[in-house]
Amino acid sequence: MPAAATRPTRLEHDLLGDREVPADAYYGVHTLRAVENFPITGTPIGHYPDLVRALADIKTAAARANQELGLLSAERADAIAAACREIRGGALLDHFVVDVIQGGAGTSTNMNANEVIANRALEILGHARGAYSHLHPNEHVNMSQSTNDVYPTALKLATYTGIFRLVEAMGYLRAAFQRKADEFADVLKMGRTQLQDAVPMTLGQEFSTYAVMLAEDEERLKEAALLIREINLGATAIGTGINAHPDYAPLVCRRLAEISGVPVVTAPNLIEATQDCGSFVQLSGVLKRVAVKLSKTCNDLRLLSSGPRAGLGEINLPARQAGSSIMPGKVNPVIPEVVNQIAFEVIGNDMTVTFAAEAGQLQLNAFEPIIAHSLFKSITHLRQGCRVLADLCVDGITANRDHLAAAVRNSIGIVTALNPYIGYANATEIAAEAHRTGKGVAELVEARGLMTAEALAEVLRPDILTRPQMIPTAG
Amino acid sequence: MPAAATRPTRLEHDLLGDREVPADAYYGVHTLRAVENFPITGTPIGHYPDLVRALADIKTAAARANQELGLLSAERADAIAAACREIRGGALLDHFVVDVIQGGAGTSTNMNANEVIANRALEILGHARGAYSHLHPNEHVNMSQSTNDVYPTALKLATYTGIFRLVEAMGYLRAAFQRKADEFADVLKMGRTQLQDAVPMTLGQEFSTYAVMLAEDEERLKEAALLIREINLGATAIGTGINAHPDYAPLVCRRLAEISGVPVVTAPNLIEATQDCGSFVQLSGVLKRVAVKLSKTCNDLRLLSSGPRAGLGEINLPARQAGSSIMPGKVNPVIPEVVNQIAFEVIGNDMTVTFAAEAGQLQLNAFEPIIAHSLFKSITHLRQGCRVLADLCVDGITANRDHLAAAVRNSIGIVTALNPYIGYANATEIAAEAHRTGKGVAELVEARGLMTAEALAEVLRPDILTRPQMIPTAG
Amino acid sequence: MPAAATRPTRLEHDLLGDREVPADAYYGVHTLRAVENFPITGTPIGHYPDLVRALADIKTAAARANQELGLLSAERADAIAAACREIRGGALLDHFVVDVIQGGAGTSTNMNANEVIANRALEILGHARGAYSHLHPNEHVNMSQSTNDVYPTALKLATYTGIFRLVEAMGYLRAAFQRKADEFADVLKMGRTQLQDAVPMTLGQEFSTYAVMLAEDEERLKEAALLIREINLGATAIGTGINAHPDYAPLVCRRLAEISGVPVVTAPNLIEATQDCGSFVQLSGVLKRVAVKLSKTCNDLRLLSSGPRAGLGEINLPARQAGSSIMPGKVNPVIPEVVNQIAFEVIGNDMTVTFAAEAGQLQLNAFEPIIAHSLFKSITHLRQGCRVLADLCVDGITANRDHLAAAVRNSIGIVTALNPYIGYANATEIAAEAHRTGKGVAELVEARGLMTAEALAEVLRPDILTRPQMIPTAG
Amino acid sequence: MPAAATRPTRLEHDLLGDREVPADAYYGVHTLRAVENFPITGTPIGHYPDLVRALADIKTAAARANQELGLLSAERADAIAAACREIRGGALLDHFVVDVIQGGAGTSTNMNANEVIANRALEILGHARGAYSHLHPNEHVNMSQSTNDVYPTALKLATYTGIFRLVEAMGYLRAAFQRKADEFADVLKMGRTQLQDAVPMTLGQEFSTYAVMLAEDEERLKEAALLIREINLGATAIGTGINAHPDYAPLVCRRLAEISGVPVVTAPNLIEATQDCGSFVQLSGVLKRVAVKLSKTCNDLRLLSSGPRAGLGEINLPARQAGSSIMPGKVNPVIPEVVNQIAFEVIGNDMTVTFAAEAGQLQLNAFEPIIAHSLFKSITHLRQGCRVLADLCVDGITANRDHLAAAVRNSIGIVTALNPYIGYANATEIAAEAHRTGKGVAELVEARGLMTAEALAEVLRPDILTRPQMIPTAG
Repeated sequence: MPAAATRPTRLEHDLLGDREVPADAYYGVHTLRAVENFPITGTPIGHYPDLVRALADIKTAAARANQELGLLSAERADAIAAACREIRGGALLDHFVVDVIQGGAGTSTNMNANEVIANRALEILGHARGAYSHLHPNEHVNMSQSTNDVYPTALKLATYTGIFRLVEAMGYLRAAFQRKADEFADVLKMGRTQLQDAVPMTLGQEFSTYAVMLAEDEERLKEAALLIREINLGATAIGTGINAHPDYAPLVCRRLAEISGVPVVTAPNLIEATQDCGSFVQLSGVLKRVAVKLSKTCNDLRLLSSGPRAGLGEINLPARQAGSSIMPGKVNPVIPEVVNQIAFEVIGNDMTVTFAAEAGQLQLNAFEPIIAHSLFKSITHLRQGCRVLADLCVDGITANRDHLAAAVRNSIGIVTALNPYIGYANATEIAAEAHRTGKGVAELVEARGLMTAEALAEVLRPDILTRPQMIPTAG
Repeated sequence: MPAAATRPTRLEHDLLGDREVPADAYYGVHTLRAVENFPITGTPIGHYPDLVRALADIKTAAARANQELGLLSAERADAIAAACREIRGGALLDHFVVDVIQGGAGTSTNMNANEVIANRALEILGHARGAYSHLHPNEHVNMSQSTNDVYPTALKLATYTGIFRLVEAMGYLRAAFQRKADEFADVLKMGRTQLQDAVPMTLGQEFSTYAVMLAEDEERLKEAALLIREINLGATAIGTGINAHPDYAPLVCRRLAEISGVPVVTAPNLIEATQDCGSFVQLSGVLKRVAVKLSKTCNDLRLLSSGPRAGLGEINLPARQAGSSIMPGKVNPVIPEVVNQIAFEVIGNDMTVTFAAEAGQLQLNAFEPIIAHSLFKSITHLRQGCRVLADLCVDGITANRDHLAAAVRNSIGIVTALNPYIGYANATEIAAEAHRTGKGVAELVEARGLMTAEALAEVLRPDILTRPQMIPTAG
Repeated sequence: MPAAATRPTRLEHDLLGDREVPADAYYGVHTLRAVENFPITGTPIGHYPDLVRALADIKTAAARANQELGLLSAERADAIAAACREIRGGALLDHFVVDVIQGGAGTSTNMNANEVIANRALEILGHARGAYSHLHPNEHVNMSQSTNDVYPTALKLATYTGIFRLVEAMGYLRAAFQRKADEFADVLKMGRTQLQDAVPMTLGQEFSTYAVMLAEDEERLKEAALLIREINLGATAIGTGINAHPDYAPLVCRRLAEISGVPVVTAPNLIEATQDCGSFVQLSGVLKRVAVKLSKTCNDLRLLSSGPRAGLGEINLPARQAGSSIMPGKVNPVIPEVVNQIAFEVIGNDMTVTFAAEAGQLQLNAFEPIIAHSLFKSITHLRQGCRVLADLCVDGITANRDHLAAAVRNSIGIVTALNPYIGYANATEIAAEAHRTGKGVAELVEARGLMTAEALAEVLRPDILTRPQMIPTAG
Repeated sequence: MPAAATRPTRLEHDLLGDREVPADAYYGVHTLRAVENFPITGTPIGHYPDLVRALADIKTAAARANQELGLLSAERADAIAAACREIRGGALLDHFVVDVIQGGAGTSTNMNANEVIANRALEILGHARGAYSHLHPNEHVNMSQSTNDVYPTALKLATYTGIFRLVEAMGYLRAAFQRKADEFADVLKMGRTQLQDAVPMTLGQEFSTYAVMLAEDEERLKEAALLIREINLGATAIGTGINAHPDYAPLVCRRLAEISGVPVVTAPNLIEATQDCGSFVQLSGVLKRVAVKLSKTCNDLRLLSSGPRAGLGEINLPARQAGSSIMPGKVNPVIPEVVNQIAFEVIGNDMTVTFAAEAGQLQLNAFEPIIAHSLFKSITHLRQGCRVLADLCVDGITANRDHLAAAVRNSIGIVTALNPYIGYANATEIAAEAHRTGKGVAELVEARGLMTAEALAEVLRPDILTRPQMIPTAG
């Protein structure tokens, strides 16, 4: 919080009266009060550059639309656009100081943007900060707008951008898994269901599922992005469009698409769109899906690499750091573990989003700031998790081929492949005897005269155990 | 649990040894053991007829595919199909006795189906129940199958059917809301943001948002249904297709689509599809979205109808029952309240689904039975909730038109409409004075000479307050 | 729903007008309307006998208190008490027909009880059902009461009873784990952290943790029960005690404690107690804790018994049923799996309770029915899960002692015990070399001359590896 | 991340080889690798000073215990204690650089502490940073310890401290509510159930419930704190106490209690305590309870202050900032709104904690870092929320007394008070007529000759409507 007393100040005025604002601050009295009202996390909204950039793009689009409708002078529109261009480029981020958890449905975030842009635009126009008679945060920067259309639109732009960065990171991780799937294509191993030995498969098949899973989740995220690009600019306060020109909504949407590069469209019913958080809930649900799958994948990696001697020991994760302050030589699966934890956080974030969305009342959801905070965390952390998992773990995975092959040779599960030849009842007895005696399945089948050694060798050929095959008529 | 001792029995045999099964039971030893192992809820899987029907369709499709591939005799395939047809028609539901919460990844559900179908088919063939040498639950009814492809496929068929019944109920509710939106199209009222008076709108606009919200959610559910129709029949144990003919997977999929009427498709990667619960997580997430929106709608209905005298009193819900055992004449919003509670249950179910999905390991998710139970509850209860809300509440809603109109006339919020004419700063002062003195906005504006009575009357015309309008150039 | 048209009926009257009620029904018009209003789950409140018994006890206690205060005649009080005694004994359960998910804050449940008790009491008094002028559901059975004090009190009584049944089942399971801990007290094995081999322990130590964990959770449940026994009888509608005699609250509490055997106490602030769901949220949180710990335990059991040949294979769970419809001889950990699923359900139920509790408004929480439904399910299913886990799984667990011993001998983790003798840096090098070469730790230490064979033998004695020990001065 | 290349460095060594560490860094190679491995949130553990202080206290206690057991020289113990004292005082916080979300079960946090303390102690001893032969992070600072006992103990110390700061803030808020309860003790108003007018109460009674609720939650938090103070120091790697002196556990616990001022006790079963997260789940559940109740309270405040003209308008919240960028004069309940959002975050955090706790395997829970992160956020944000709510909202609340009194006079709900005099059936008819005609209850009762004006006046006296009263015998 600025120590206003010790710095030169300028006087600003709002509904509640006069306040001294630090003279060098681009924000104004509304932002100052919000900073004082919400000392919650210590993290300012400038922590989310995508959100700040989205606000700048919206303010530019609105200024241009208002200019075209004859409502705003070219001089003011140009100054606003120039200020926003700087912000888009990364300037003034540290003047976006309102806490990420804030009351007021985003009004403080919107006013923070209005004030910073107004004051920077005033400078560009040759005026002093605070000289709002020349260019006013509300009357000019916020013209034809309300927090209630600006804030959700900014949130949508920012998450849209974030989703595609996440999709890119997921694709990067998917490629890493696919390379391993290719590398391990001929490594035979026992598949497991319910942690019990089942039937053979290849390690390549196992790793390919992680790649396929990611590919599917990437598609789901892209679908969620399509929903998120539907905006409500032009809705103003509650969606009725009060104080907006009838041509404003379509115009500002076109300009915003051009400026931001995001293919935004205007929602068909602006009143519904203004109160609706459905697309955020859906996006959060898909992020939860991604988290669940990624967590399951990391659980698998940790399980398959358990050991080195008293675990499954099928694969080796690359060592990234010493694993223990007391146990020498211990190396832990720290990268999958951190991704598990990101997943747990994302699942918790989804619950927060759900609660906040349900709590909306009548024409507005006042709790979008916590929705924003939760979504930004989920998207950013998942993205980092995918990158880290690819670079610091998957790329370096190796297989213990001999150990895997021995497990297949030694398994009872291969008796399943004999089902069509000896029947489920015989196969069950063989399995039970193998389990009891420790003997091999083939040995027992041959001993009982159920199949010849040659027939067994043919049916149990590794290359046919891992895919569908022609089987004899059972009747 | 059947009191086996006091009823005639037949002897059956499995991995664990011999067991007496009630002679009149269509299920067999596997089912019996499962009933004994899982005395959890007391609710048998027969409670979900869609699931039982789906199993019957799958078994028919598999029998036909096996027959076409020359693996199963026409006689056996016909008998299986005949038994399944009866089950599809509603017969034998009370022989599906395994608890809805069960261990074993659905094996007990699948074996319950295999046994009931086998025994009914045996009867059809003129054999006694239990004479499995003629037609065996595992070798014939379950041929080319595993629980691990049958069970998730059945779950998908059943939820697919359920989704569309839910969508239909949502459409029914949507129509009820739309009728009210039309009826209230000209009822002016104050819109609210953050529970504070905002700007005018019509009650019709307010109700239209509930219809639009439902329409959107119906679309999302249909999209989720598209994902859910991707099946893994042919995967057998872990997705490698062991024991299945190479032509089986596409063939059984075609037959299943014909028999069930559900446009199922085979997943591109059967190993991934066998372990994957992504589409269930996604569906559950969309059901949660529906629940969240429906709950918000019911919150609104309860709030708008609060009173009768000390509340908002904007609308009246039809009285459905006496509201209190002590307060005479009290009528409560019991229908929205029950829908709120369904929504809370659905949100909890989503958490259960999420946990169960994350807990999957390696080649299988062993926890699909609780996923099934959770999804079936969510779908069924939401469907009932939509019907009840439409029939017993929305259809009978009336508006307190005079009260609503007075609130607009009396409001401070209409000052927003004057912004473009008198500026945000003047408008703020007017609002503050109105709030302080209790006076009307128009009165104060005129008194300060900011606008004439004529200009005010023009700008504050009800028909233009609730939509975008031409506004003067502000520069 | 009763098919009123085809059965003899009697006429009843309420706020909404006249209705025909089946002549043989003990419930009346209020219940009938509720049945029609809430066709949600198909499960009636009679499904929870503890709740019905609690209502009977409350009605008896209230009748006696009213009698003692001179407000109710002895004849009526006796008849009410007699009817309630029958219900307590299990009679008339099928006349408690309102759906478990219902709107109206429990009013329908309370009225269902009032009507059944009134009609049975009327019979006892020699009157016809429906002859309410002699004994009225509201004026006599519900005297000095409101749903808003009766329903939460009934819910608390019922959960209190349920908690102690659950605690008993947990104690039963704890004893089973403790027996195994004793049986395995001398079975040496490798302990694991992060699924990586750590240092030795005994299997008995491992199993003792499951017993200790349950003991702790039993204590937490008993603490939660202490909170749950605080009731608000005497609060009537909103806690102000309107229509209740000043002496009624303490009197009815004493009578209820006597009748129910539950040591209920009256809340200090009845207005707060009437709207508060804190103790339900807390109880649900503790149930969630139990579920989390039980699920972790089952995860461990499944992991330790993974195999039989390609898993950890440390312990064997008793076979309960054939594990696969396709894989002969496969046996799965179905009992731990079903307990995992119960745990996931309980966690979801907690979310439902949380949502419902948060949604309370002003003087009442209208959503207690779904809280009740969720808590009853959690308590009942956890109880069944504990019993099943003890009887069908833990009791039959056996250890693979040789395999476990070999893993310790073969481990790298024992190098940790050498830390104090050879230093962390040397130990790290030894561990790395052992991992690289496959050689044994002791062998390498001796080869490097860091310790003698004798010293090694002493330090690595199994009996001292699993507990604290005197160590040399390191300085 | 330190730009190592451009700064002077020193060489350090670990399991993975050599690494250059910035010469001016107090942390070492283990920390450096962790920073590189976990670039997730950008928030370092130094963000939680309570955690860093707890680590310093533990390291001091361990050093002193080791010294007393003759395992560590006085010189080294003194140096460690001196370094920790500085850290406790707030020094070196910016050298705790590992990300708050990290893999490895807290090893990186523990090693970060070990390294910073070792290097600062080395300086104190007159050695260069990195001269670990004189004082080693693992062998001396971490002596007799493992991350697996240090980290959970640190987490418990830090949350214990945090809980009591939260309890203090809750007490502060409670006092604010209680002052308002006293101020409004005689303000009569209508109570509401299910948002419908119920019976009269005072605004003081309403506000007292918020104070009572907080008082109860403070007690629950203190109980949870009792559980959290049970530590596992002496457990070392998995709880068997390997490498710890038999007297170490009780000794270090005593020293830690003295140094930290927290009354820590040693868990009875260290193996169970090392893997157990039950107390964290329980604490998180209680924090969720606090959040739920606080959110409900804020919902009430927002509802009661809705308006100013078209809402309930019963109370006024102090204006804290302009409420809208478009609607002049609008003031929103921003403080309750921000507290609602904190509550939603806490509920989500609880879900994260639940997932992380359930995911523990065998002898350790590897996911405690996300549990720590979640708990710290919940505790800190709730504390800030309570302070803000007290100072910026509750303290300034005023009541609209006339409006409230009129609502009671005008209400139908007061008919409940006439129940004992005119019967439930008559009262129901009066209520219905009042609702239909808009007339007053007393007027109608008198008109029907059910009670005299005098009797009515007596029964409807405000001072007796809000508490229990003597009522006539009803029989």
